[in-house]
Amino acid sequence: MQTYNNPDRSEWKQILRRPTLNNNNLEATVQVILDTVKKDGDQALFSYSKQFDKVDLSNLNVTDLEIQEANQQVSQQLKDAIQIAYDNIYKFHSSQQSDSQRIETMQGIECWRKNVPISKVGLYIPGGTAPLFSTVMMLGIPAKIAGCQEIVLCTPPQKDGSINPVILYTAKLVGCTKIFKVGGAQAIAAMTYGTESIPKVYKLFGPGNQYVTKAKQLAQQAGTAIDMPAGPSELLVLADDEANPDFVAADLLSQAEHGVDSQVVLVAYSPELVKKVKQSIQEQLTQLPRKTIAQAALENSSAIVVKNEKEAIEFINEYAPEHLILNCQDAEELAQQVENAGSVFLGAYTPESAGDYASGTNHTLPTNGFAKTYSGVSLDSFVKKITFQQISPRGLKNIGNAIELMAEAEQLIAHKNAVSIRLQKLNKSNI
Amino acid sequence: MQTYNNPDRSEWKQILRRPTLNNNNLEATVQVILDTVKKDGDQALFSYSKQFDKVDLSNLNVTDLEIQEANQQVSQQLKDAIQIAYDNIYKFHSSQQSDSQRIETMQGIECWRKNVPISKVGLYIPGGTAPLFSTVMMLGIPAKIAGCQEIVLCTPPQKDGSINPVILYTAKLVGCTKIFKVGGAQAIAAMTYGTESIPKVYKLFGPGNQYVTKAKQLAQQAGTAIDMPAGPSELLVLADDEANPDFVAADLLSQAEHGVDSQVVLVAYSPELVKKVKQSIQEQLTQLPRKTIAQAALENSSAIVVKNEKEAIEFINEYAPEHLILNCQDAEELAQQVENAGSVFLGAYTPESAGDYASGTNHTLPTNGFAKTYSGVSLDSFVKKITFQQISPRGLKNIGNAIELMAEAEQLIAHKNAVSIRLQKLNKSNI
Repeated sequence: MQTYNNPDRSEWKQILRRPTLNNNNLEATVQVILDTVKKDGDQALFSYSKQFDKVDLSNLNVTDLEIQEANQQVSQQLKDAIQIAYDNIYKFHSSQQSDSQRIETMQGIECWRKNVPISKVGLYIPGGTAPLFSTVMMLGIPAKIAGCQEIVLCTPPQKDGSINPVILYTAKLVGCTKIFKVGGAQAIAAMTYGTESIPKVYKLFGPGNQYVTKAKQLAQQAGTAIDMPAGPSELLVLADDEANPDFVAADLLSQAEHGVDSQVVLVAYSPELVKKVKQSIQEQLTQLPRKTIAQAALENSSAIVVKNEKEAIEFINEYAPEHLILNCQDAEELAQQVENAGSVFLGAYTPESAGDYASGTNHTLPTNGFAKTYSGVSLDSFVKKITFQQISPRGLKNIGNAIELMAEAEQLIAHKNAVSIRLQKLNKSNI
Repeated sequence: MQTYNNPDRSEWKQILRRPTLNNNNLEATVQVILDTVKKDGDQALFSYSKQFDKVDLSNLNVTDLEIQEANQQVSQQLKDAIQIAYDNIYKFHSSQQSDSQRIETMQGIECWRKNVPISKVGLYIPGGTAPLFSTVMMLGIPAKIAGCQEIVLCTPPQKDGSINPVILYTAKLVGCTKIFKVGGAQAIAAMTYGTESIPKVYKLFGPGNQYVTKAKQLAQQAGTAIDMPAGPSELLVLADDEANPDFVAADLLSQAEHGVDSQVVLVAYSPELVKKVKQSIQEQLTQLPRKTIAQAALENSSAIVVKNEKEAIEFINEYAPEHLILNCQDAEELAQQVENAGSVFLGAYTPESAGDYASGTNHTLPTNGFAKTYSGVSLDSFVKKITFQQISPRGLKNIGNAIELMAEAEQLIAHKNAVSIRLQKLNKSNI
C-alpha cells in the first residue's frame, strides 16, 4: 500500500488508476463458448461441465429432493441470520416501488407511466471457494418484489455434482423458479440463447470471473440486457483524525480479501493516521485465512493524505468508488457532497460488511468508475417503465395545431396528417 | 403490406420478424473512425467533415452569433408550438422526480437513496433531410431537469457549414451547454474520448444511422454508457371494428414515412377493416412527399387478423412494439394487459404523432423487441441513484451477529472482523 502525502492534483490520475486486465484472447475464447452453446444446447453444457468443473452431470436442473436435503444441512442459526438480512433487504427494496401518477399535461391530455416486471431474468452466482448466498438474496429479492415470472439461477456444480446447500436454501427462500448446475461463460450463453433445459431470459444479473464478465458483454451485444458492466471490487475510506485506526484497517481488509485484483484506497488528513492504519492492517492481516489474497490486493492500493475536506470530496468524486466509507465526525454533511459513488456508509459504526449482507441496501454496485453513470442494482433493475397517454377530442383540439406545425417543420407530413385527419373529423362533427 | 388471416400461432415468429441488416464490415469501418478520433482529436473531425459532410470547417463549435441568427430565422408560430411541447414535456418529466425516503430497516439502521445527475451527457442529433428538433427537446429537457452540468450536443453541419436554425433554437431553449458541428460515428467518438474542442461525456443519447448506432455500441464496450440499443422505428396499431380506417391508415403512414426500414403492423378482428385501411393507405399515400420511403417500409409490414382480444394482447406482448396504438372502444382495459411496449396510445384521438412531438411523454423508445427489457428515455436516464446507510452503535448491536454468521458462512473472515472489532469496542465501553 503506497502512501502519497499531499500529492499534486496532476498526479491524481495516476494514483486513481484501476488495475487492468489484458483480455485480447479472452473475447475469442468466450465467443467460441457462446457459439457452441447456441448451436449444441444442453450437450455443450454437459461437455463444458466435464472440461471446466471436472464433473460428469446427467441432469442440469436441481431437483426438489436436493433442495430438501440442502434445507436440512443449513443450521438454524444461519437460517435466522439469513432471515434478518432477507427482511431488511425486502423492506428497503419494497420502499423503492413507485405509484403510477397520472399527469394532465394540458386539458384533455393525460400521460402516465407504469412499472412492468421484466418477465424472465437470469441470475448468475459464482462457485469457487466462497458460496455467495448473499448475492442470491441481493438479486432474487428485488426480482421477486418486481414480479418477474421466471427467475432462473445458474451456479457451477462442485466436483461431486452438488451445489452448496446455503446457495440452494437461499435460492428457494427468495423464490427462484428454476435452478441449474451450470457455471462460467457457458451459463451466460445458456440463459442468453436458451437450451433444451434452460430458458432464454431477457436480462442477466450477477458477478463472475473475467470469462463470465466477457460473456455478459457479448450477450449484451447480442441483445440480452445486463445489470451493469463489471470490474473488480473497490472501497475508499475517508477517515478523519478521530477515526479508530483499527476500524479503518478492518474495513480496508474486508475489501482486500475479495480478490487479488480488488482495490482499496484510504484518504486521510494526517500522515499519523495513515501510519496507524497501516500498522493495524499488518497486525490484523496475520489472522486472516485469505491473507495472501488480501496482501496482493493491498499492493494495488494506496493511502492519500489530502489538505482538507474539499480536496477529499473532489478526490472521491473523481475516483467514483463502488463503496465509500465516511468514517468522519461530519459524515452526514460530507455525504451531501458525494456525487459519484455506488453505496455510501456513514460514520464509525457503519462497516461495508453491513451493506454487503444485511442492512437492506444492495451490494451489486458499479465498479471501475462506472459510479459516475450507473446505479447499483435496485428494484428498478427488474422492471421497465411503459408510458401511456390518452387524449380526448378536446385535448387534440388544444394541442393539434402545435403538432401539425412541428411535424411540418421536420418535413414529416404523414405525422402531420395523422392529426389533421382527426381535427377535420372533429370539425365536421362539431365536437 | 401482407395480410394474414387468423394465422396459426406457430407462424407468429415468422410474421413478427424485424427487418435485419447485415453489418459485418460496419464494425471494422466504425472502429477505425473511433480509433482515429481517439488518436488525432479535432484534426480527425475536420478531416471526416470534409470527407463525409463535404464541408471544410475551421471551427467545430457553434458560436453565440450563429445562435442569435438562428433565433431570428425561426418563425414566431413555430416558436409558440415548440413552447407548448416544451411545457408538456417539462411537466411530465418533472413529475418523474422522486424524493429520497429514509427507511429504518431495523432499529438503528437507516438506508436511503438519492438521485444524483450524471454530470456530463452527450446528445446526438442526426442531420439529413428532416431536422429532428423534437429529439433535442426529448433529450435536453430531462437532462436539464436532472441537473446535468454539461449537456453537449453534436449534429452534422450542412454543406454550407451551418446547422439548421430550428435545431440551434431548440438546443439553446432546452439549455444545451455546448453545441458542435460534428456528425456520424466521429461525433460519437469525440464525445466518448474527448478532443481538444469536445468534452468527453459519461453517457450518450440519441438516434442515428447504422454508423452512429454501431459507434454507440462500441463506445459502450469502451465504458461510456448509452441510452439504449437502437433499431428502426416501429408501430403496431390494434384496431377494433369501430375504428375509423382513415385514422388507422394515417397512423400507419406516419410511422412508415420514417425510413425504408421502419415497420408497421396492423392487428384487427375483421378482414373488412383491414381491407378498408389498406384502401385508405393507398389514397393517403399519393399525397405524401415521402411516398417512396413509406411504400418501401410498407413492404416490411403486415396486417394480421386475430380471433379475439386475448389473442391480440398475446400477439402484442410477443412483438413488444416501440409504439402501440389501441384504437379500440375498451382501450383502458386493454392497456392494463400490455406487458411489453415502449409507449402506448389509447383511443381514437391519440395519434402517435402526439407523443412524437408534444403531449409530454418521451419519444426515445426501445425498438426491435427491446421493450421486453428496456424503458424509454425518462428523467431516470440522466441520473444515477446512490444508496446511503447509517448505523448507530445500537443498530450494529442489533444486526452485528447476523452479519458475522453470514460472513463466516461465505468464508470471508475479514468481512466478519469489520463487525467483530466494533462490537468488541462497544462491549468494552458498555455502549
